[in-house]
Amino acid sequence: MNDPRHYQQLIEQRLSTLELGSRPPELYDPIRYMLALGGKRMRPALLLMANEMFGGNTETSIGPALGIEVFHNFTLLHDDIMDKAPLRRSQPTVHTRWNNDIAILSGDTMFVHSCQLMMQTSSELQAEVLADFFKTAIEVCEGQQLDMNFENQPHVSIADYIEMIRLKTAVLLGCSLRIGARLAGASALDADRLYHFGTDLGIAFQLHDDLLDAYGDPEKFGKQVGGDIIANKKTFLMLSAIESADMYTLDELNDWLRRKDFNAVEKVDAVKRIFEKLDIRSRTQQEIDRYFDRALSALSAIPVADNRKVALRTLSEQLMVREH
Amino acid sequence: MNDPRHYQQLIEQRLSTLELGSRPPELYDPIRYMLALGGKRMRPALLLMANEMFGGNTETSIGPALGIEVFHNFTLLHDDIMDKAPLRRSQPTVHTRWNNDIAILSGDTMFVHSCQLMMQTSSELQAEVLADFFKTAIEVCEGQQLDMNFENQPHVSIADYIEMIRLKTAVLLGCSLRIGARLAGASALDADRLYHFGTDLGIAFQLHDDLLDAYGDPEKFGKQVGGDIIANKKTFLMLSAIESADMYTLDELNDWLRRKDFNAVEKVDAVKRIFEKLDIRSRTQQEIDRYFDRALSALSAIPVADNRKVALRTLSEQLMVREH
Repeated sequence: MNDPRHYQQLIEQRLSTLELGSRPPELYDPIRYMLALGGKRMRPALLLMANEMFGGNTETSIGPALGIEVFHNFTLLHDDIMDKAPLRRSQPTVHTRWNNDIAILSGDTMFVHSCQLMMQTSSELQAEVLADFFKTAIEVCEGQQLDMNFENQPHVSIADYIEMIRLKTAVLLGCSLRIGARLAGASALDADRLYHFGTDLGIAFQLHDDLLDAYGDPEKFGKQVGGDIIANKKTFLMLSAIESADMYTLDELNDWLRRKDFNAVEKVDAVKRIFEKLDIRSRTQQEIDRYFDRALSALSAIPVADNRKVALRTLSEQLMVREH
Repeated sequence: MNDPRHYQQLIEQRLSTLELGSRPPELYDPIRYMLALGGKRMRPALLLMANEMFGGNTETSIGPALGIEVFHNFTLLHDDIMDKAPLRRSQPTVHTRWNNDIAILSGDTMFVHSCQLMMQTSSELQAEVLADFFKTAIEVCEGQQLDMNFENQPHVSIADYIEMIRLKTAVLLGCSLRIGARLAGASALDADRLYHFGTDLGIAFQLHDDLLDAYGDPEKFGKQVGGDIIANKKTFLMLSAIESADMYTLDELNDWLRRKDFNAVEKVDAVKRIFEKLDIRSRTQQEIDRYFDRALSALSAIPVADNRKVALRTLSEQLMVREH
């Protein structure tokens, strides 16, 4: 079975030769720029790996694989406008390099291109693939809106938070896997198992991301440790701390959350001391393990020879041990 | 044959009961608001009229008809952000009433909903309808980008301008008609004839709009006559004047275009005097007639009993005599 890198390279090469329009350049230059910024190409790789697992043919699934990646990049492009992000992968974001109007419109165009690519399947599965994709696309929008809402919402429960990351991140991983499986002729049941493998893995991955922000190795992490704490981000760690703190500790935590003037290192240290007191690190790790184990049991339940599952299992383990 | 009003009412009623999501409300309230602002519902009415012309069944075409209208409203929503428009149909625009982020994201969600609605067709035509729709959606984005480019572009030819309005406005009218025809079993040739009827009608309509801005009846026009002139908009009239003016007249025109401080009435009067000198009004009317006649001959060429064409012909004549 091919390893993830094989698919990532294939996707990279096909993305670079994708037939898009060219006129007006103000519309297509940003699209090409965005697609050339790179990335792990995780979603299309998952689609193709699921496809191979059920004996599918990569060439007949490459359209939807590219479609998922173009769609993902469209969401990043529009999210960057909403987040006012200056950089993506150390390069200026589209709205920074061009402007907001161009970023909105080239994003819209990318979305249409992704739909066209999703259609490049055998006709008997076309409607099903598109319906799955559109349903997921709407969920991704809902997740992004929830994420924006949470910034100004005084109370966010852990359940709300998990639902937000499920919609914003996890369902697209699940959808990629399910489409790949169905295109290879997998049963709806097995494809759904792979979908749940993907969504649970996605949630575990996102929680791991939250954990790394506070506890990642500063050498390997590549960005400021504690950035989420400094920015008062409502991560799983912070929400768990708020939910489990006694009144005295909650006051202390809220005091840090309310301060306008503070020393960043001091705030990170103080909040991490509260996390330690409340055992937040191991609570988070337990939650990650729970989702990760659930993902692996969904994978195990699929009646396919174990050697066909090695690549997906290896990939998911790699995702969980990364420190950056 | 049913008249346009019948279809407009049907669309209005179905739009108001459309099944959208509800959570989070920040995403769905703006969508419902946008769809409730009203409008002539011209595109879905055209789709259903084309469908009826070829003996189709309204109920089996209502999904794509609604899809086209939701898509059209998505483009208006995003265009309003780019144009920084405070009002639409005398109501606050979505980005004014909520904010830009919500307008971007609820627009994206509307677009996905429009795709879902476009899929609600008999399966054998689904792929063709979607392909036509996506191709057109990309053209609409290209047209909007060209329109934005023209604002800062010193020279715009009349041919460029016509191509811009073809993409931005006309192709969606054509696409609506073609899809309606195909869903009723029309041949590809006849459906294409109706497509060209729609695009030529759309161009004639847009040119007529340019004409009304300068020469509409102030009583009926409902907005300031000469608004395009005051704003230096590159309309068909202005571009024709620039293209046909002798050097002396061009200097005079450019002088008005360059002035920062001016009396609006004086500017409108002066520019309209230049238009009269260059015979711009009748040149524009000739161009409108040319596109309108071409639209009608495309309609005439369709081998369908004349009484089945009455509604489309009546509608197109109404479009051309309106004074607001």
